[in-house]
Amino acid sequence: MTYCVGLWLEKGLVMLADTRTNAGVDNISTFSKMYTATVPGERMLCLLSAGNLAITQGVWNRLGEGLALEGEKLTLLTAPSMFRAAQLVGAAVRAVYEADGPTLRAQGVGFDVSIMLGGQIAGGPMRLYMIYAAGNFIEATPDTPFLQIGEHKYGKPILDRTLRYDSSLEDGVKLTLVSMDSTLRSNLTVGLPLDLLVYEAGSHRIGLQQRITEEDDYFRRLREAWSVALRDAYRSMPAPDWLSSRS
Amino acid sequence: MTYCVGLWLEKGLVMLADTRTNAGVDNISTFSKMYTATVPGERMLCLLSAGNLAITQGVWNRLGEGLALEGEKLTLLTAPSMFRAAQLVGAAVRAVYEADGPTLRAQGVGFDVSIMLGGQIAGGPMRLYMIYAAGNFIEATPDTPFLQIGEHKYGKPILDRTLRYDSSLEDGVKLTLVSMDSTLRSNLTVGLPLDLLVYEAGSHRIGLQQRITEEDDYFRRLREAWSVALRDAYRSMPAPDWLSSRS
Repeated sequence: MTYCVGLWLEKGLVMLADTRTNAGVDNISTFSKMYTATVPGERMLCLLSAGNLAITQGVWNRLGEGLALEGEKLTLLTAPSMFRAAQLVGAAVRAVYEADGPTLRAQGVGFDVSIMLGGQIAGGPMRLYMIYAAGNFIEATPDTPFLQIGEHKYGKPILDRTLRYDSSLEDGVKLTLVSMDSTLRSNLTVGLPLDLLVYEAGSHRIGLQQRITEEDDYFRRLREAWSVALRDAYRSMPAPDWLSSRS
Repeated sequence: MTYCVGLWLEKGLVMLADTRTNAGVDNISTFSKMYTATVPGERMLCLLSAGNLAITQGVWNRLGEGLALEGEKLTLLTAPSMFRAAQLVGAAVRAVYEADGPTLRAQGVGFDVSIMLGGQIAGGPMRLYMIYAAGNFIEATPDTPFLQIGEHKYGKPILDRTLRYDSSLEDGVKLTLVSMDSTLRSNLTVGLPLDLLVYEAGSHRIGLQQRITEEDDYFRRLREAWSVALRDAYRSMPAPDWLSSRS
């Protein structure tokens, strides 16, 4: 399993992925699920992946080689817009599906892959896409300024309740880490270390790329502080009137 | 879908269920998923169910009629212990499986049911069980003082982080309602009104049984207060040092 989350905020992008891959709970490994393609000052693209590792690695390889889109061979470094880049990722997914889909199906293995693509190319707006296994995609909007792939349920309530399009990048980092922590606690197949990327809108370069390990002091303090804050929060809330009036 | 949660605390039980049933998202209904069997002062048993409604109603009917357990016909009102009562619920599940399982299987419908049973019978300890579709069961312990059935993921992080065996019943009520609210926000097939039951250990009677509707003033205030408390909580947490040292 995997958990990846991407925030599309007024001030920029926050993208976070775990690194655990597994074939059964007795066979786990660490693989980065974050890929970047940048021309500093001109473009910054960040991809996060979930699903079958052979499929996602097949997608990265095809993206590296380049694919023909409407007759023109493009890579993530030459795509003229974020929309074209999302189409390119979709084309790479479809290319893997054509190559491996029939055999996977014959062996009863699902074609399981989803990819998040966030970034900005000079001259165009910053965008965040989620590309499905069919190669089609959706995009984040101010109404729902975050997207998730993989094991999304445990980490969703905190984002639903607190995240807004005008949240700061700093708050975005805290909230994605809390969201990830909720998932790490409940699903063994999501694991440390984490890959975090922060992008400031209009900068066309990576603002921060950070690997967060078990030993990261801030992440440890955040986990502890969050549990304490939640305890304080529910203790400070009033008791139900129908509960106190019962005796 | 369904979300039910039961807390097994030092001071008693808190049991909460939603009431939505659905056959597709365009066919939803309200059915109580909470059943109680009590002899005030002698026993208090509360059951919550998730899964196929025809199966759970079949279970309730068989429990009402009584089932033979090791040669003796028993109901929830005559079972001599909570362990026997859990076996009785398991026997009722197996009886429905024998009656309906082959036809369901032939039509490609899974035998989907799980039941929580909490309570106390005079002379024995208070217990909380989860009975599976196979009729076997597990029991809550001080290490993990809560059980969930149905759509459990959205509401689990808050319980993981805050609930302890020695939490008060009042805190238990607040936390189950927050846990339910997280689920209501994310899964349309979990819906209001809610059925809540509170039991004080050793009392052998229902302490509180409350239906919580959309109009319940306390639940409305709790939802709002919780969102505010979460916002205050993450705002009060320090920013990552590696984020501020970047510029």
